[in-house]
Amino acid sequence: MLLPTRYTSMLEEYEALTTAVTIWDVAAQRQVEIQGPDATALTQYLTTRDVTRIKPGQARYTFICNHAGGILNDPVLLKLADDHYWLSLADRDILLWAQAVGAERGWNVAVREPDVSPLQIQGPKSGDLIGDLFGEAVRDQKYYNFVETELDGVPLVVSRTGWSGEFGYEVFLRDGSRGEWLWDRLFAAGESYRASPACPNQIRRIEGGMLSYGTDMDDSVTPLELGFEKFVQLVGPDDFIGKAALRAQAERGVEHRLTGIRVGGDPILYNPEHHDVLVGDSYVGRLTSVVYSPRFEANLGFVFVTAEHADPGTELDIVFGQDVRRGVTEPIPFVEPTKNG
Amino acid sequence: MLLPTRYTSMLEEYEALTTAVTIWDVAAQRQVEIQGPDATALTQYLTTRDVTRIKPGQARYTFICNHAGGILNDPVLLKLADDHYWLSLADRDILLWAQAVGAERGWNVAVREPDVSPLQIQGPKSGDLIGDLFGEAVRDQKYYNFVETELDGVPLVVSRTGWSGEFGYEVFLRDGSRGEWLWDRLFAAGESYRASPACPNQIRRIEGGMLSYGTDMDDSVTPLELGFEKFVQLVGPDDFIGKAALRAQAERGVEHRLTGIRVGGDPILYNPEHHDVLVGDSYVGRLTSVVYSPRFEANLGFVFVTAEHADPGTELDIVFGQDVRRGVTEPIPFVEPTKNG
Repeated sequence: MLLPTRYTSMLEEYEALTTAVTIWDVAAQRQVEIQGPDATALTQYLTTRDVTRIKPGQARYTFICNHAGGILNDPVLLKLADDHYWLSLADRDILLWAQAVGAERGWNVAVREPDVSPLQIQGPKSGDLIGDLFGEAVRDQKYYNFVETELDGVPLVVSRTGWSGEFGYEVFLRDGSRGEWLWDRLFAAGESYRASPACPNQIRRIEGGMLSYGTDMDDSVTPLELGFEKFVQLVGPDDFIGKAALRAQAERGVEHRLTGIRVGGDPILYNPEHHDVLVGDSYVGRLTSVVYSPRFEANLGFVFVTAEHADPGTELDIVFGQDVRRGVTEPIPFVEPTKNG
Repeated sequence: MLLPTRYTSMLEEYEALTTAVTIWDVAAQRQVEIQGPDATALTQYLTTRDVTRIKPGQARYTFICNHAGGILNDPVLLKLADDHYWLSLADRDILLWAQAVGAERGWNVAVREPDVSPLQIQGPKSGDLIGDLFGEAVRDQKYYNFVETELDGVPLVVSRTGWSGEFGYEVFLRDGSRGEWLWDRLFAAGESYRASPACPNQIRRIEGGMLSYGTDMDDSVTPLELGFEKFVQLVGPDDFIGKAALRAQAERGVEHRLTGIRVGGDPILYNPEHHDVLVGDSYVGRLTSVVYSPRFEANLGFVFVTAEHADPGTELDIVFGQDVRRGVTEPIPFVEPTKNG
């Protein structure tokens, strides 16, 4: 399945996202549904966080690793019931992985791709739109909670999640035949809030320190190298795929780290390519994402470099073909400039 | 990755395929490489044929099933060495499935997607072209054999396989950076044989009784239901995923079967949709593929129907919207009309 990547321009969509409300068709990002008596056992084994502490109606950002600790996906996990989970995937398939593991372990669980199509409603006016459509309780739910609800009889899940860095929601349509209807219904309801179609916005997500699977990480990278120790349950009795490898890596220390960077020079347009990072003449890693941020009035990005060069304030050279630019590392999330600064 | 589906028209490409030589860019069909001390153990466990009887330099058409016996893929398996295999996949990913199974079993094996890009050289003149480029030994190798060779120093594997129903070869390029070079090199060498670019040809493959993954089968269908008992090693001590389910199905008999059908009426253009199959007013299955065959001067296709309606000579009604047509089943492969018939 394909995903829209631009309706107007990245900058126009950024303006709409940060001032009004934008609606994103991300139906291509499929769910893997895990359901049955052993659903919790399989979900725990597949993911890096403590699933037993999640209650129905709660979601978590988590990692799915391979046995070497490499990241296969960084989904949002939704717990619908004690025996029922959705993995809301980033841009890589997981269905066959989860099916193979469940069946090889002999667990009594169904693993399938359900008829669920997500879209995102993101931006400062998204609460108003969600309130109008679903009422105060859905609007005011806590971050990373969700409710099972409906709109004109069509079943939906609405969560307080999103990949924008702005306030927002995700709507999971549970009837794929109603996709066009839902799209039109949301825009009709959002007219007074200047709702506009948009796509995952590279500018705002980089400003917000949000990483992109396939760009900032892949299965050669571990959650610890991204600085996500807090989302990896290294202690405790529950096992998960990759735990032994990650525990060993934690003990010896990571050799590479991902960190933020501010790159000098003229504004840089987003492109999905990596660029070499040098210290002097030595290759020390790669720039994984970079874009000019109107809010920060600077080029912000991420580098994946040897750990000794990842401390804040390190000067690094980035190779854009003939154009070599100086950058300085800083922690993620980037600290917003003060209004009077 | 995407695959070209038409350069000229399906009928023009059919003419070129059946009279000269056609070259197909099927680089999107990736390989899964299985290598290491336990490569044979994993390959055996993933596939339905007896891997121990295959010698290096031999290939096999095989099935990869899930634990319920449903088909996940129908690749060509190439054995490069006793500890080294390629699964040359049909149109579905298998990498994560194979990685999960290998790691969960604790086998000492690397499972990866190698830098290998296949193309097919198919048609009656393909032997001449291959002979000119690689010599007699490569040209005259047996069906489902392959050789590791090179062209102007670029490493390749050349196999006597293909998905056309015509005489042909596959060339597996082992250096993705040389794809355009190889394409141009082959057309330059093939000029005197009227070599032309083409795509997997639906007309010729249906005439040849060749099934298409995602169209004629998916993971709701088993190899036994396709009539491929001979490619499923149900006896013997070696285990494979789905064996228990398939053995049980063999004992109780299949409830559905795929068979050939000849459909009456005007010539039918190929489309990838399924159509209901009726006996009287009762739904008995689906037409999975159909197209008009110039060689047979008839509409040929495949139906997946309840076993009692799959015997040769059964009359079935096919629903093309308002147009309901009568068809008569016949065995696959379809028997060629005699020249003087």
